Amino acid sequence: MQLEKPLPARTIRARALASHPLFHHFVIVLIILNAILVGMETYPALYEPHERLFYWADRVLLWLFTVELGLRIWAARPLHSFFKDGWNVFDLLIVLSGHLFTDTSLITLLRILRILRVLRAISAIPSLRRIVNALLLTIPALGNITLLLSLLFYIFAVIGTNLFSALEPEYFGSLHQSLLTLFQIILVDGVMDIVRPLLDVMPWSWIYFVVFILLGTFVIFNLFVGVIVSNIEKVEREDREEDHAELAALRTDLKFMRDELREIKQLLEKNRE
Amino acid sequence: MQLEKPLPARTIRARALASHPLFHHFVIVLIILNAILVGMETYPALYEPHERLFYWADRVLLWLFTVELGLRIWAARPLHSFFKDGWNVFDLLIVLSGHLFTDTSLITLLRILRILRVLRAISAIPSLRRIVNALLLTIPALGNITLLLSLLFYIFAVIGTNLFSALEPEYFGSLHQSLLTLFQIILVDGVMDIVRPLLDVMPWSWIYFVVFILLGTFVIFNLFVGVIVSNIEKVEREDREEDHAELAALRTDLKFMRDELREIKQLLEKNRE
Amino acid sequence: MQLEKPLPARTIRARALASHPLFHHFVIVLIILNAILVGMETYPALYEPHERLFYWADRVLLWLFTVELGLRIWAARPLHSFFKDGWNVFDLLIVLSGHLFTDTSLITLLRILRILRVLRAISAIPSLRRIVNALLLTIPALGNITLLLSLLFYIFAVIGTNLFSALEPEYFGSLHQSLLTLFQIILVDGVMDIVRPLLDVMPWSWIYFVVFILLGTFVIFNLFVGVIVSNIEKVEREDREEDHAELAALRTDLKFMRDELREIKQLLEKNRE
Amino acid sequence: MQLEKPLPARTIRARALASHPLFHHFVIVLIILNAILVGMETYPALYEPHERLFYWADRVLLWLFTVELGLRIWAARPLHSFFKDGWNVFDLLIVLSGHLFTDTSLITLLRILRILRVLRAISAIPSLRRIVNALLLTIPALGNITLLLSLLFYIFAVIGTNLFSALEPEYFGSLHQSLLTLFQIILVDGVMDIVRPLLDVMPWSWIYFVVFILLGTFVIFNLFVGVIVSNIEKVEREDREEDHAELAALRTDLKFMRDELREIKQLLEKNRE
Repeated sequence: MQLEKPLPARTIRARALASHPLFHHFVIVLIILNAILVGMETYPALYEPHERLFYWADRVLLWLFTVELGLRIWAARPLHSFFKDGWNVFDLLIVLSGHLFTDTSLITLLRILRILRVLRAISAIPSLRRIVNALLLTIPALGNITLLLSLLFYIFAVIGTNLFSALEPEYFGSLHQSLLTLFQIILVDGVMDIVRPLLDVMPWSWIYFVVFILLGTFVIFNLFVGVIVSNIEKVEREDREEDHAELAALRTDLKFMRDELREIKQLLEKNRE
Repeated sequence: MQLEKPLPARTIRARALASHPLFHHFVIVLIILNAILVGMETYPALYEPHERLFYWADRVLLWLFTVELGLRIWAARPLHSFFKDGWNVFDLLIVLSGHLFTDTSLITLLRILRILRVLRAISAIPSLRRIVNALLLTIPALGNITLLLSLLFYIFAVIGTNLFSALEPEYFGSLHQSLLTLFQIILVDGVMDIVRPLLDVMPWSWIYFVVFILLGTFVIFNLFVGVIVSNIEKVEREDREEDHAELAALRTDLKFMRDELREIKQLLEKNRE
Repeated sequence: MQLEKPLPARTIRARALASHPLFHHFVIVLIILNAILVGMETYPALYEPHERLFYWADRVLLWLFTVELGLRIWAARPLHSFFKDGWNVFDLLIVLSGHLFTDTSLITLLRILRILRVLRAISAIPSLRRIVNALLLTIPALGNITLLLSLLFYIFAVIGTNLFSALEPEYFGSLHQSLLTLFQIILVDGVMDIVRPLLDVMPWSWIYFVVFILLGTFVIFNLFVGVIVSNIEKVEREDREEDHAELAALRTDLKFMRDELREIKQLLEKNRE
Repeated sequence: MQLEKPLPARTIRARALASHPLFHHFVIVLIILNAILVGMETYPALYEPHERLFYWADRVLLWLFTVELGLRIWAARPLHSFFKDGWNVFDLLIVLSGHLFTDTSLITLLRILRILRVLRAISAIPSLRRIVNALLLTIPALGNITLLLSLLFYIFAVIGTNLFSALEPEYFGSLHQSLLTLFQIILVDGVMDIVRPLLDVMPWSWIYFVVFILLGTFVIFNLFVGVIVSNIEKVEREDREEDHAELAALRTDLKFMRDELREIKQLLEKNRE
């Protein structure tokens, strides 16, 4: 797939093909076909009588994806620019993994890899790509709150395991079970099935749950408010910079006029003499 | 219902009637009566002894609606202007369907059509109409996020069916069952009834659920923030345009004054000569 | 309690007393005592041995409240100004109801009336009063959305009763039961306990629930966004008016200066002649 | 730990050490080690064979924390400045409690105290400290709403106990049980398990629950909106002050120019004479 310098005409053709709208639409059609295929495979009534057909359809799709990716790599000039875009690397990994795990006996892993190819829709459809990029950009801002939530979860998981492991081993039997239970509690999904049986034995145990829910909700609530406020602030700041620019232009105008006035006054004073 | 040209007086009277406040209130009363009627029909103790009465009341209401609609169509000048408003078409479909399915044996479908006539309240009450129009306008903005959520649901549904169809056929037995289960999971309603039994057989299965909930919540959370921020941005932009207009007027004033000053200076310089 | 004109000194003393901070604090203490009392009464172990004591404590509190209210009415000048404030009327109704229902055998109603006296804390504590007033002010803005939600609930309740009353009489047996079930569904609390049993008999019944949840969530979501945006808009508008005032002042200044410049030019032109 | 004046060199060295980045990182490592240790102790398979090891590791950690804290107190100049920062007092209490409760037989309390040492991560990691400080600052604003919610809870708890204690003693048996049940209801977690059994005996009991959920949701919803709006307002106010400063500067410029113009006019008028 390495390009030699004496073949620029082919490269130009490859680039023209790779950036052609029809080529682009064809790739999206392939991804949709792939999605339908993996969906149909989940119905044994559809899959079992035509197992060979599904196998070959998948092989053909994989090779079509490989050719498409090869073409895009070939068209990339310089080559390393292709790998700069995270989505291209993502596409490459998805397609390569399809070749690596073909003859494995891990049928479930194989199928999951095949369904992950549907994620290529994100890199193929620009509006989706844009939205996912925007979503990814919001992650760093969540860093500290996530650290704080992790701390909260860890501390409450250790306390919960210490307090309740003997009474409710199915919920607080071990640290990792407690963590899952706390996740369930923060989702407020069946909390009382956990709390009520404890109340008979440990009447004060509700404090643990109420404090955890209030603290957790409080932190998430502030995260939410913080994201909204900082987003609006960002929009405002941009507008404000425009305003400042206009006000600055006004002041420049005024400064110029003041200089003119000073000159006029000097002229007048000279006239008078 | 086609209007001939030599009958303008009748048209004018039809229009005067159709736009009269009393006519409008009468229609709203009819819609409320229709709503009460279909509500009462759901109580067998009320409905069964007076089945004929309910039947005739419904027939009378339907014909009153038909006459009202006919009048409004008649009053519309030109005729096609009536069909330009989506709400008029909606009213027409609702009333026509009442005539088409009268003698059908599908009693349930019939009743649902009759209750849908209550939706005419939206087109008849201006404030409701305005709010629903506003709600409909927010839908396009949800497009890309909806596509992303659909992708998320589809991929997790295929993976879930592959992984858990044998263990929990009632939840993940087929692709469409998995989709409903994922809808239940994103609503966080009884998630743990699904997860906990799986944990004994597949200790790592919680990853599937936690990742799906976190991803789904994250996308919906961003949708929410996005809608709030873009709405505030829209309000700001309008205000900002006003501001810019005022600042531009200021600059025009200043420019005019600078010209005046220049002229004054020239006059002075000429005076001096 | 009517005040005669020849007794202004007493009125002045009543007014001085009614507006004294200590009097105010004493009322708050009474309300708290009343709250503790009704709380203690719910514990039979506390209440039953001292039934007479609780009865007399309650009588004393009621009379103290009556005296307090009488004093405030007495101090009000003119009298009808007292009844203009909704909170005063509220206090009056609460205290009067205590006298009206004293010897009734409806012990539960009596106790509920007594606990409602705790609500007087809202009218007695200014910060609470302010916050509740602010909350009440937001209600009118919810009007149209509430109407739309009611429509949605009513239509889905009738449809649900028609479709599912035979299959799930405990949830959709009658129109009012369906309304409660829809309230449960919109709260997303145990929805699947209702949906899943239906799926075996009516495989398409999920559409009803998914559509209702999506529509309901969509309307409530928009209500939420609308309230946030309109609140921010209100804040902005106020700021903006300030800005406009300043910009208008600037323009007045400029207009004045333009007039000055015109005069100067005219002077210069005259000078030149 | 009291510092004598003739020993400034040691103090300087202590301060240099206490503020050294490596010292800081070492403390964070100790906190992480402490967290891992208390986590591992919850697994009996890990803990029981090495009980002595865990005991000594914990002792060593505690003494290292003590030395670290001693050093920081020693480095603080003047001494009482150390106690001004709430986080330092927090650290001190956490470490001191470790020494006070060493030989107690209350193994659970001991373990909880040890896991609370992990909270020192907040005081040790500046970004976490900042976020927690920000969170703590939002609490006062919640004061009045919290008071209102408490009132709502208390009133409904007393009413609920009066109405339902005989019918559902496990939910409304006593005032404190009712309070927990109301907390469960406001979280909308299994509400219908409580409501439905009541409906057969008291058909109107749903009013109690619907009113409580609507009131509670309404108050919390307004709290949410209020926090978002007041945060945005704060951001706006800051920007606005900047704007006002710029507009004020403009007006000063204009005023200066008007004075100049007046002088010019006077000069011209004098020239003319």
